[in-house]
Amino acid sequence: MTSKTNSGNFFEDFELGAELVHPIPRTVTEGDQALYIALTGDRSPLSCSRPLARELGYAREPVHDLLVFHMVFGKTVGDVSLNAVANLGYADGRFLAPVYPGDTLRSSSTVIGRKQNSSGKTGVVWVRTRGENQRGEAVLEYTRWVMVNKRSPQSPEGERLIPELPSRVAPEDLVLPDFVKTADFPAWTTGGRAFFDDYEVGELIDHVDGMTIEESEHALATRLYQNTAKVHFDAVKTKDTRFGRRLMYGGHVISVAKALSFNGLENALGVLAINGGTHAAPCFAGDTVYARSELIEKAELPGRSDVGALRLRLLAVKDVDPASEPFEARVERDGKQRYAPSVLLDLDLWVWMPKRPSA
Amino acid sequence: MTSKTNSGNFFEDFELGAELVHPIPRTVTEGDQALYIALTGDRSPLSCSRPLARELGYAREPVHDLLVFHMVFGKTVGDVSLNAVANLGYADGRFLAPVYPGDTLRSSSTVIGRKQNSSGKTGVVWVRTRGENQRGEAVLEYTRWVMVNKRSPQSPEGERLIPELPSRVAPEDLVLPDFVKTADFPAWTTGGRAFFDDYEVGELIDHVDGMTIEESEHALATRLYQNTAKVHFDAVKTKDTRFGRRLMYGGHVISVAKALSFNGLENALGVLAINGGTHAAPCFAGDTVYARSELIEKAELPGRSDVGALRLRLLAVKDVDPASEPFEARVERDGKQRYAPSVLLDLDLWVWMPKRPSA
Amino acid sequence: MTSKTNSGNFFEDFELGAELVHPIPRTVTEGDQALYIALTGDRSPLSCSRPLARELGYAREPVHDLLVFHMVFGKTVGDVSLNAVANLGYADGRFLAPVYPGDTLRSSSTVIGRKQNSSGKTGVVWVRTRGENQRGEAVLEYTRWVMVNKRSPQSPEGERLIPELPSRVAPEDLVLPDFVKTADFPAWTTGGRAFFDDYEVGELIDHVDGMTIEESEHALATRLYQNTAKVHFDAVKTKDTRFGRRLMYGGHVISVAKALSFNGLENALGVLAINGGTHAAPCFAGDTVYARSELIEKAELPGRSDVGALRLRLLAVKDVDPASEPFEARVERDGKQRYAPSVLLDLDLWVWMPKRPSA
Repeated sequence: MTSKTNSGNFFEDFELGAELVHPIPRTVTEGDQALYIALTGDRSPLSCSRPLARELGYAREPVHDLLVFHMVFGKTVGDVSLNAVANLGYADGRFLAPVYPGDTLRSSSTVIGRKQNSSGKTGVVWVRTRGENQRGEAVLEYTRWVMVNKRSPQSPEGERLIPELPSRVAPEDLVLPDFVKTADFPAWTTGGRAFFDDYEVGELIDHVDGMTIEESEHALATRLYQNTAKVHFDAVKTKDTRFGRRLMYGGHVISVAKALSFNGLENALGVLAINGGTHAAPCFAGDTVYARSELIEKAELPGRSDVGALRLRLLAVKDVDPASEPFEARVERDGKQRYAPSVLLDLDLWVWMPKRPSA
Repeated sequence: MTSKTNSGNFFEDFELGAELVHPIPRTVTEGDQALYIALTGDRSPLSCSRPLARELGYAREPVHDLLVFHMVFGKTVGDVSLNAVANLGYADGRFLAPVYPGDTLRSSSTVIGRKQNSSGKTGVVWVRTRGENQRGEAVLEYTRWVMVNKRSPQSPEGERLIPELPSRVAPEDLVLPDFVKTADFPAWTTGGRAFFDDYEVGELIDHVDGMTIEESEHALATRLYQNTAKVHFDAVKTKDTRFGRRLMYGGHVISVAKALSFNGLENALGVLAINGGTHAAPCFAGDTVYARSELIEKAELPGRSDVGALRLRLLAVKDVDPASEPFEARVERDGKQRYAPSVLLDLDLWVWMPKRPSA
Repeated sequence: MTSKTNSGNFFEDFELGAELVHPIPRTVTEGDQALYIALTGDRSPLSCSRPLARELGYAREPVHDLLVFHMVFGKTVGDVSLNAVANLGYADGRFLAPVYPGDTLRSSSTVIGRKQNSSGKTGVVWVRTRGENQRGEAVLEYTRWVMVNKRSPQSPEGERLIPELPSRVAPEDLVLPDFVKTADFPAWTTGGRAFFDDYEVGELIDHVDGMTIEESEHALATRLYQNTAKVHFDAVKTKDTRFGRRLMYGGHVISVAKALSFNGLENALGVLAINGGTHAAPCFAGDTVYARSELIEKAELPGRSDVGALRLRLLAVKDVDPASEPFEARVERDGKQRYAPSVLLDLDLWVWMPKRPSA
């Protein structure tokens, strides 16, 4: 192997404050949107209906929020997580501006934390990633942290900084574009009977449907995002890993769960923030994903009386439908509260939703 | 499960004359067209060649007829057939105007018939569905009927009306847009050597090719159409059904058979009507589909001397190639004429085709 | 089976000098581009980034070179290789003009060689294929030869001509459009650290990543190109062939290997020529593809001092990663030098690459 190829950064390579400019700017198109729907089953009306988008003030149908996330994320893999052992978490993610088909996304990341693990073989790296459009405007920012292999256990530990992360994005920092107007929101377009006012903190919504994911489906999605992490694609190399097979890109689980959550949250028109997230267990081809949402907070949006923000905890659960049988996300094991083995994902989101139109 | 989710209508919920406005208007794009080709193998030149479409008078390449059908149909599932036991048939379907990439489709359905079954546990519901574009112009209308579960066997039977359905759309009701002109039809673009004049009533055409369908392929197609019927997606829940596995969306079988039928019907430039159709047997991943067409009627189109209409009976057959071995669609079983077990689909269509150019 | 269907040409049908005009012109769209990325993992920045394409002088992002190749090739199958026993080779392929989304591709082929095999049951046919856009401008030309069944072993041998083929396209015949300018080439967009100057003849690059291909993935790709060769699609009919299963379209192997080769050749911005190519072994679903490039020649491009041409031998290897273990493409078997059994593809390409910017 020559030195011309990129074999990714190791823990030693991440210096605090370093800025990584990720290659391969990507023009997002209607083709990507169609594939996103076909791969995830997403039905978000705002992203699939041009007339609705225009009635709400958008120039046209915006690219799905999570498709933007995956495109921005995908670019970071070659520099951040090619040698990652685990994708540990997300925090403080904000969607800042709509992306339209034809826009071009690029990403850069700043190393904001690093900490060698006690084994001396790995370390944790925190990066703050910024996704921009072709005009250099930020469209998305988020923090994620990963466990990365060290090139050598002997190399020095280096600097140590564990960044402080907010437990959630504050409502006053949520960005819904000013141009959005919901005065004439045609609720028939979503089919949702419930509005912001109708949801209560503590409420659980089991989203009814399940989706079995095939090997080619997650691979198509992950390649679409130009995410090149080997573990998703190489059946030969993954045979000798602890899972013995290809691992699904966690982002595909997020998208499938989000798509399933449409049934019961039809009027959640867009994602404003990813407050945090954990991939509690790996997902593999053949798994069937179900989704449950728990409403954990409601907030007003700065300067708006027509829409509000719902904070949801979106759970993806594997092979067990929480709608059909008693289900607890947390169980006691070895004297500790842990995720039930069937929990794949625990994601904390802010979404926006129109208030009930006055009659 | 809270009441915010949609668990579909039951037989009791369908009132005669009720109008169901289906949510999620959908802008159809070039991305959907590309996926349609990749998923079905369709080669209809009118929908994949912009110059040909323009030579024939279209503004640009129109969306595939059956892609329009699936998009319109997909929207109805949440209101009509989420609790369906079986999709019993189609009738009186007419394509009324071309749809172009960028157009937005929406659907509504009227309940035109209902009849409780003798068991008291299910009933049959007939709906007339209308697909419209963003200007409110009808692009497609069809009738379908489904067997739907009752919420409770105890609930009263309700009204009973079995609608009269035409055995086929009358030729004078077929709509080919006036702007279509075939004077300079470049027949090399289709590769077809036979024109309207060359087909004879009673003729059988075995379409040579076969297509094996994978689990992910029908799932991608069905999600693309935002059709959410559980039986197509959930391997866990379908394990305990009588088939023990996911069932393919019948519309995917229609599209694959139609795509295969290109070989031998190259100059059939578009579908004018779906006269009727039966899914004779379920189709599953791994099945190989072959197609046979029988020419059952020829007709002139109102006001046109350059093109005519062919009425075809399109059969989709599973794992047996009618071109290679003797094949009868109907066999005697238990003293009755029934479909041979390998028959998946029996679809009755009107297509339009140019007449042989005079030399 | 009636005579209306196309069952393909046999050896007897190919007359020297005959011109075959292939049907089904195809408008290539953003949807096709998105699918190409999802199916192959391609990351070529020129084809996925509109701003980069414009900075380099293109009107917008051009269609992937190999997607153009597959579309042009796909059209030829019905006339050239429906009855082919084997796709023997490619030669003298040149990319002549960029194709943009919205352009329409059509193909025609001239029979330039034919030779009956000694068995009398098959023959070899050479065709020169030309791909054109909607203005009749050539965008691609290449020669390929296939072994085709005879309709009858008794039929006469016919004419015999074995065309002379160049061992590679001469550098002075390579076409890079005059409008291409690299003065401000933003190298961050590719992530490549190596430029034309940095590659040495004889250098080997093992491209690190591997890609396992699923049945539905190659089938989706092959249908997208409207390539109808039965062997790729029909699990029933292929059960009795010598492989006992569906065979992958060789072009999909080319595309996957080319996509993998991005890692280590990031600044190879486009393909100029296919000098030759051999499918050394069949590829099947479930195989994992790795790629190795050998740099076999460097050349200046006519009239340009800013970019040069690299001639690469691109190997696709199955289930063995040449980056991880000792690997020889050629091994001795039965006293002859032959391809190692794991070699799928040996492709000889010219690509273009900017020279290192002077500081």
